[in-house]
Amino acid sequence: MRVNGKLYRTIWLADDGRTVRIIDQTLLPHRFEIVDLRDLVAAVTAIKAMQVRGAPLIGAAAVYGICLAMAADASDQSLDQGYEALLASRPTAVNLRWALDAMRSHLRNRRREERVEAAYRRAAEICDDDVAINAAIGDHGLDILRGAAAKKSGKLNVLTHCNAGWLATVDWGTALAPIYKAHDSGMPVHVWVDETRPRNQGMSLTAWELGQHGVAHTVIADNAGGHLMQHGMVDLVIVGTDRTTARGDVCNKIGTYLKALAARDNQVPFYVALPSPSIDWLIDDGVAGIPIEQRDASEVSRISGRLADGTIVQVDIAPEGSAMANYAFDVTPAHLVTGLVTERGVCAASPQGLRRLFPEGDRTTESKAHA
Amino acid sequence: MRVNGKLYRTIWLADDGRTVRIIDQTLLPHRFEIVDLRDLVAAVTAIKAMQVRGAPLIGAAAVYGICLAMAADASDQSLDQGYEALLASRPTAVNLRWALDAMRSHLRNRRREERVEAAYRRAAEICDDDVAINAAIGDHGLDILRGAAAKKSGKLNVLTHCNAGWLATVDWGTALAPIYKAHDSGMPVHVWVDETRPRNQGMSLTAWELGQHGVAHTVIADNAGGHLMQHGMVDLVIVGTDRTTARGDVCNKIGTYLKALAARDNQVPFYVALPSPSIDWLIDDGVAGIPIEQRDASEVSRISGRLADGTIVQVDIAPEGSAMANYAFDVTPAHLVTGLVTERGVCAASPQGLRRLFPEGDRTTESKAHA
Repeated sequence: MRVNGKLYRTIWLADDGRTVRIIDQTLLPHRFEIVDLRDLVAAVTAIKAMQVRGAPLIGAAAVYGICLAMAADASDQSLDQGYEALLASRPTAVNLRWALDAMRSHLRNRRREERVEAAYRRAAEICDDDVAINAAIGDHGLDILRGAAAKKSGKLNVLTHCNAGWLATVDWGTALAPIYKAHDSGMPVHVWVDETRPRNQGMSLTAWELGQHGVAHTVIADNAGGHLMQHGMVDLVIVGTDRTTARGDVCNKIGTYLKALAARDNQVPFYVALPSPSIDWLIDDGVAGIPIEQRDASEVSRISGRLADGTIVQVDIAPEGSAMANYAFDVTPAHLVTGLVTERGVCAASPQGLRRLFPEGDRTTESKAHA
Repeated sequence: MRVNGKLYRTIWLADDGRTVRIIDQTLLPHRFEIVDLRDLVAAVTAIKAMQVRGAPLIGAAAVYGICLAMAADASDQSLDQGYEALLASRPTAVNLRWALDAMRSHLRNRRREERVEAAYRRAAEICDDDVAINAAIGDHGLDILRGAAAKKSGKLNVLTHCNAGWLATVDWGTALAPIYKAHDSGMPVHVWVDETRPRNQGMSLTAWELGQHGVAHTVIADNAGGHLMQHGMVDLVIVGTDRTTARGDVCNKIGTYLKALAARDNQVPFYVALPSPSIDWLIDDGVAGIPIEQRDASEVSRISGRLADGTIVQVDIAPEGSAMANYAFDVTPAHLVTGLVTERGVCAASPQGLRRLFPEGDRTTESKAHA
């Protein structure tokens, strides 16, 4: 999508065809800066430090991490080490494993001298597939937005949490793809953007990317969504997901569950947009089955911002000596989800709904689980 | 309660018996600083700038504002001007009006030369009454905490939102009064403190005052409470309220409603602590009837914190050009509230429950409304 009027993806190759380029998302919204990744360590660090984040982009960065590992040393040992290092870089995202499995099985039975080229070719395909998937999610979600817009006059008010925009994917985004499609088609759409503490991806990334693309939006504290829904100011909620279970439970950024409760209490439709690689067919009960990443307490107690002179600084906002806890995700039970918007269409958040769109789902995962 | 080992109230008189002293709560948790209020304008400014905040403390500051107005000019005109200026300083808190009405009717029919002394005497009584009310709320709430603690082993985990501690009142607090009483009685209690964006009163004030008093606590993002409740990590929620309707709807800091929804969804008891002056007997339906204050967008987009060298600075955290909305309160419908903890005991959040404890309620308000 557009930044300063120019089209970008979130990950691409430099002219040398080897160096991987990303946008350093930790500097947004204050500074737009491009970072070169030249080896496996840089790729692992970029994922760990959340210079890249969002399940699909993490997957893309991981497959390019394998490319960088192969470019340095195309041995089996290097492949396995790269796989393990990248897999350990973020514990929750299921399509990190999916993408790494795809790369490893693609490379394992090849001769060493073919592996570098094969890796970069496969990585490019995986990225292009992600773009196609998100564009399809956008088209299916656009039908939902059009349906909601037809029921009212004036602009459509959509609430979203965290960042499931193009910055979280290779392009288009998941939850924001329908919004970009709606905006581009001329529909008057306005987005309520949860700031999404503690890392503020809504305020820092979603608001930034919507603003760069010209989509009307208003940033709110995470606390505000219930009030807005009580007063008819939200027509529809759409969020992304890091992991969706076989029965449709949704593991997404911490706080998503609270918005789903408010949506149900106020009869506001609550949609989740997802690329099918984020479905974990091996887990049914998300609350019981998905381990929730706990991140560093400093993400809660420290925040970065701009001083009046434009300098970016980190400030401590907590009392000295107070403990902090930082659970990164929560699980929204399927019964609170109006529908899942996938690249193959919209389905109920249920085993039947998902199986109708993805009849091959279970089999695929089982073969992955035994790989 | 204690600060650096010394006992304080939140508002008191200097040795001259006229100057009003407050803690500048906008500097917490970074700096503990006492401010002298010497005239009406300073009192209005302190309320508007939220150097004092919390419904009971706003009421106390307002009555001392009348004292300062009388000390400068004890005329009827000065009394009315002071009343109006203070009443307009915050739109939502119902006991601001209650306290000002009490002061005006106490002074109106007195001779001018008696008014200053009468004002300071009445202000001191109102403050002492607030302390007694909160101590009683603490005792009644303590029974609830003891009941909850008896049902489990280990420490009792209580979640609270915003600051309804002693800093929000003259002393003890409302929602935190039972927690202080429990802690002082030796009960092992741990408090989950919602940071409470956008002004972060939970992180800045609740965590600070609990820490100063030695109560175990952990600060969390506002988004985290639902996850904690899903996993059995919260035994009980207790919050304050700025305004409670005759049927038990609760208008409290934005985001309270979301926690009440999560509490219901996870069978966690949800209590609201309130001094009876915060009951608005003239309103039933809180969602329809209570105007919600919208505060400045900069409270969302800008935050203050400490640099590594201890300097306190304000930083901008939002993209330039993005709109912000800042609704300060929301309304939690009575049916989500397990019980109201008042100075006269605990009651159901219902017209019957409130009328049982406050049979004189409606009459009192009607006479106030026609004053």
